[in-house]
Amino acid sequence: MNDYNNQNKLTQLSEIGEFGLIDRIKNKIQGLSTDNLICGIGDDASVSNISQEDKLVVSTDLFAEGVHFDLVYSPLKYLGFKVISATISDICAMNAKPESVWISIALSSKFTVEAIDELYDGITNACETYKVSIAGGDTTSSKSGLIINVTASGFANQNEIVYRNGAKPNNIIVTTGDLGGAYLGLTLLEREKRIFLENPEMQPDFENFRYPIQRQLNPIARNDVKETLKSLDINPTSMIDISDGLASEFNHICKSSNVGGVIFESQLPIDDSTKNLAIKFGIDPTIAALSGGEDYELLFTVSEDDAKKLVNHPDFSIIGVINSSGICELETYKGKRHELKRTGFNHFEPKDENS
Amino acid sequence: MNDYNNQNKLTQLSEIGEFGLIDRIKNKIQGLSTDNLICGIGDDASVSNISQEDKLVVSTDLFAEGVHFDLVYSPLKYLGFKVISATISDICAMNAKPESVWISIALSSKFTVEAIDELYDGITNACETYKVSIAGGDTTSSKSGLIINVTASGFANQNEIVYRNGAKPNNIIVTTGDLGGAYLGLTLLEREKRIFLENPEMQPDFENFRYPIQRQLNPIARNDVKETLKSLDINPTSMIDISDGLASEFNHICKSSNVGGVIFESQLPIDDSTKNLAIKFGIDPTIAALSGGEDYELLFTVSEDDAKKLVNHPDFSIIGVINSSGICELETYKGKRHELKRTGFNHFEPKDENS
Repeated sequence: MNDYNNQNKLTQLSEIGEFGLIDRIKNKIQGLSTDNLICGIGDDASVSNISQEDKLVVSTDLFAEGVHFDLVYSPLKYLGFKVISATISDICAMNAKPESVWISIALSSKFTVEAIDELYDGITNACETYKVSIAGGDTTSSKSGLIINVTASGFANQNEIVYRNGAKPNNIIVTTGDLGGAYLGLTLLEREKRIFLENPEMQPDFENFRYPIQRQLNPIARNDVKETLKSLDINPTSMIDISDGLASEFNHICKSSNVGGVIFESQLPIDDSTKNLAIKFGIDPTIAALSGGEDYELLFTVSEDDAKKLVNHPDFSIIGVINSSGICELETYKGKRHELKRTGFNHFEPKDENS
Repeated sequence: MNDYNNQNKLTQLSEIGEFGLIDRIKNKIQGLSTDNLICGIGDDASVSNISQEDKLVVSTDLFAEGVHFDLVYSPLKYLGFKVISATISDICAMNAKPESVWISIALSSKFTVEAIDELYDGITNACETYKVSIAGGDTTSSKSGLIINVTASGFANQNEIVYRNGAKPNNIIVTTGDLGGAYLGLTLLEREKRIFLENPEMQPDFENFRYPIQRQLNPIARNDVKETLKSLDINPTSMIDISDGLASEFNHICKSSNVGGVIFESQLPIDDSTKNLAIKFGIDPTIAALSGGEDYELLFTVSEDDAKKLVNHPDFSIIGVINSSGICELETYKGKRHELKRTGFNHFEPKDENS
């Protein structure tokens, strides 16, 4: 009989962290490939050959209750929509067209049939929005709470696909939408949950902060960007979706592309309601944008010529420039540069005391 | 704030059951399709157009600790192999060639890095065995235990794909391998677990029952069958994998194909060690074969002419015949016929008292 709880002389997961574990798994499965696989682990989605020209793009995401969502403040209808958006976002980040999803669900007995109906209303609503089919799934029981896994596929022409690793010095860094909202929405919901648990009679008033809450509970994947860029005749050199915060994704692009770059704090697109909520909570809006995550916007790089085509376009913000330094930096409002680690940026680090 | 635990006037999941829930979900997502989707929910895997001739086949399976596996007696290396086998089996059941897998894992902090290494050793070993690539995945934390989701893809030519719904009257029913072993292996392991928990000094002796235990812990998907059938010039008319027991899968084929059929008890392939273990536990070996599940063999139907080509082939057993009755039946050793429900067959039902 096995004893996996005997942890003498064994390594705890916390010692190597999530990224360490992913690297370890990557090393283990290296070389385990087939001729058709062009890109495996290491980008937003895998890319496989269908034909010389046409490629299959696939991504998979697992969402666990208590880790990725809290049903105290996440309505199941919104949750259903969000898990589809989050996975479709990975397909969009390859500049591919989403096509199908496969949905696995494990449920504990606390869920009623009506609750599952709500969840599937959100899922089907999202699939209608993104024009993707629900091609299959698995339904099973769970010992604790709700687990959802979504696999999404998409198609793209060989020439259309954009990887993380194509950024070049002097390329311009662009983001869609605005940043930090989802994180501040979460902060607000977590606070209201604490208040609610202490006094269930208190009903929260979200009136002035509908936007950040919508960004957290009901994000929309940017499946419009591929068409917009095509219509502007823009060919991104690298692309990634912003699910873990701008700092982390910017680092991914630079590391994969073997370049560095500078992002300008003054250029970060942050919505006014996000800023107001940040001030209310004493949070630096820049930190929310850099490290908050779950914004599901797209971060990409373009040539200087292509950048001219999207100046003042309402969907896009030019936020920085790629260089050959190998270092990811933030230039603050005051013109000071600081290295931007994968985990983000802290205005209150000693180094930044004069900024 | 939400209250999903308020179950007044709501329907418990147990009231409609797993199949009821799947039917409900199917109805909800009906019509939500794209031009490329040929077959969605309702077969072992989905089938999508790649081109006029080439099709993409995809299946997804979720495995939860405490529901699908018990780490007290499932070594993680075997578990890693098994989750790949189970999902690849769905691709084989469409008569397609497996190509890639995407693996999502949620882990609680009780797992050490060494434990995850073991799990991935099993996963990579399986992928090498089936010659499939690990194209991607997701790694995250869980609040309780281990959750694994595997999505598998395969390719097949339009003319090769076999669905559940093509069985015709007078077709011959065939199964690969032998049946019931996985269930009896599980029964033995569960018993030894109880003994072990009462007295951890007692080490189980599995010597005479290695085969049923291997069938439970380390099943091999039948990815060889497609090539064997091709070499014999046999074109199955319907096919399904036996994951929930023969009775359930036979019913699926008949219901999908709008036919009935008879399976002969005397023709069921059951290994001697499985029979011996069944006798030891006082379990009818026929019930284990019909209702046990997890055998991961393939059940298929062929024309009478094709059936002649596989008579006495060591990989296949002819076990019955399709008819137009619309009823699935078992003909017992004594020549009596009994309706075979999706949930299996009970020798001790009153109806069978004289058999």
